[in-house]
Amino acid sequence: MPSASNFRLVETKLPSLGEGQLLLKALYLSVDPYMRGRISGVKSYAKPVEVGETIVGGGVAEVVESRHPDWKPGDVAEIYMGWQEYAISDGSNLRRIDPSVAPVSTALGVLGMPGFTAYFGLMDVCAPKPGETVLVSGAAGAVGMTVGQVAKILGCRAVGIAGSDEKVKFLVEEVGFDAAYNYRETSNHVPKLREVCPQGIDCYFDNVGGVITDAAILCLNVHGRVCICGQISQYNNTAPEMGPRLFGQLIVSRSKIQGMLVSDYAARFGEAAEKLGKWVKEGRLKYREDIVEGFENMPRAFLGLFTGDNIGKRLVKL
Amino acid sequence: MPSASNFRLVETKLPSLGEGQLLLKALYLSVDPYMRGRISGVKSYAKPVEVGETIVGGGVAEVVESRHPDWKPGDVAEIYMGWQEYAISDGSNLRRIDPSVAPVSTALGVLGMPGFTAYFGLMDVCAPKPGETVLVSGAAGAVGMTVGQVAKILGCRAVGIAGSDEKVKFLVEEVGFDAAYNYRETSNHVPKLREVCPQGIDCYFDNVGGVITDAAILCLNVHGRVCICGQISQYNNTAPEMGPRLFGQLIVSRSKIQGMLVSDYAARFGEAAEKLGKWVKEGRLKYREDIVEGFENMPRAFLGLFTGDNIGKRLVKL
Repeated sequence: MPSASNFRLVETKLPSLGEGQLLLKALYLSVDPYMRGRISGVKSYAKPVEVGETIVGGGVAEVVESRHPDWKPGDVAEIYMGWQEYAISDGSNLRRIDPSVAPVSTALGVLGMPGFTAYFGLMDVCAPKPGETVLVSGAAGAVGMTVGQVAKILGCRAVGIAGSDEKVKFLVEEVGFDAAYNYRETSNHVPKLREVCPQGIDCYFDNVGGVITDAAILCLNVHGRVCICGQISQYNNTAPEMGPRLFGQLIVSRSKIQGMLVSDYAARFGEAAEKLGKWVKEGRLKYREDIVEGFENMPRAFLGLFTGDNIGKRLVKL
Repeated sequence: MPSASNFRLVETKLPSLGEGQLLLKALYLSVDPYMRGRISGVKSYAKPVEVGETIVGGGVAEVVESRHPDWKPGDVAEIYMGWQEYAISDGSNLRRIDPSVAPVSTALGVLGMPGFTAYFGLMDVCAPKPGETVLVSGAAGAVGMTVGQVAKILGCRAVGIAGSDEKVKFLVEEVGFDAAYNYRETSNHVPKLREVCPQGIDCYFDNVGGVITDAAILCLNVHGRVCICGQISQYNNTAPEMGPRLFGQLIVSRSKIQGMLVSDYAARFGEAAEKLGKWVKEGRLKYREDIVEGFENMPRAFLGLFTGDNIGKRLVKL
């Protein structure tokens, strides 16, 4: 588990803008579980962040100065700017954000990477049919909340697993999950899953891994589909945790378990943004933001993800 | 691990035939790893065999007496008759075997359930593209041998894992695998797999499970596909074996792991029989039979599957 002492706040002077460049000032910066993998030193799908480098990540930023024909001060963009107050861009890495659709912060949540992750993981990997049961772990997080609601929009039964009674209440009473339970109050997940998913599990959208995922696999219906989106319970391990070998169970249920990464769907982000934006506007897709104030609190905001102290999309407001 | 003392040879009198019935005498009976699951008492995809009941399984049998209009003495059929010398049928559970295509015993191997398993697991679950690397465990068994050869026919690199130097030599020199290795002589599978699969693994057809499967998952290319067909290394466990949790790796490689059961493809068995039969006739698909003589040797023939003393399809000839 990283600690605040692993982070350092560094001030540097901004260079002046070249022709075609623009300067952006962060309004919101995102902290996400995937960043843990970038600073683990373990080979993965993306280049790691080396010690001393700026941590990567998305932000929503306002143009404060522009020598680019398409951008003027006051415009807002999503940009993969890392943990920085300012960024300089040539425009090629910007997604223009229309503030009239929804608050601009949603470009880092329900109408951004977490929302797109939920959308493609559910639609493409799980591909649920109306009437099926969709189980989501990490259900009170930015991705999980969206998965459950999209499942409901598709006509499914949505069941969530989360880490506090407050989150469970929120999911069922405010977000519209059909059922949810607190994994910290549950020692044996299989009977609990059979109780909250009386028709079995057709789709399991996994954000956490570990014993919860073992139990979900044991409760899969025939031709069940598991989307491995995150494994947050495992990210701070220095060696793989041991668990029961359950692949024989996949033969019994003829199920699949598939890993997904939202960047593979980049060509279809427009589709996701349009669908999710429409559902948000119609009030069918709710979102919740968990906002920490102050750039200096980035490490604390990030580390809290691993103890589950956020409900909804955690952002840092600058 | 079961032993010969768990089996009992019982003689009963045959009933006389009713109108529309026929009597068949087994020529060959099949022993297959899946039968282990039927006698384990563990809930699975099929009804278990209770103590005292006849063990289930496929056979190739000759009609010896018929009161059925479509069948005459001398006709040959595949029938799920169990471990019995004789069976009575009303014709509804028979697949007619044409002895001119190939020896009738192949209806239990390359042109029967094991061949169909290889065909659908590879074609549907793995769906390899020309030039990709297909790894097969249990490669010298009836299913594995077929998987490797069909992969070659599709233009892939076929790599096998088997349990003796003799099997490895047979796979490479006689069957046409591009590479193979003896897992009993290998303590660290990841470097070995990197050696025999220098381009990584695109498809892994798993018949064995355990540490070999762990290693294969770690060597999957992006968008790799794993077909879980069998887990023979695990079938005699009374509780799940523990192994490293590797689902995080599925996110890194955006791979899928899918269990398959050949019976799900029953509506397409004709397609498989036609394709495999054509390849056998053309000499592009070889098969090998490992024949044990004598009905009384069924238990021994079956138990040997778990120590890997067969090469190719193990059958009992009556």
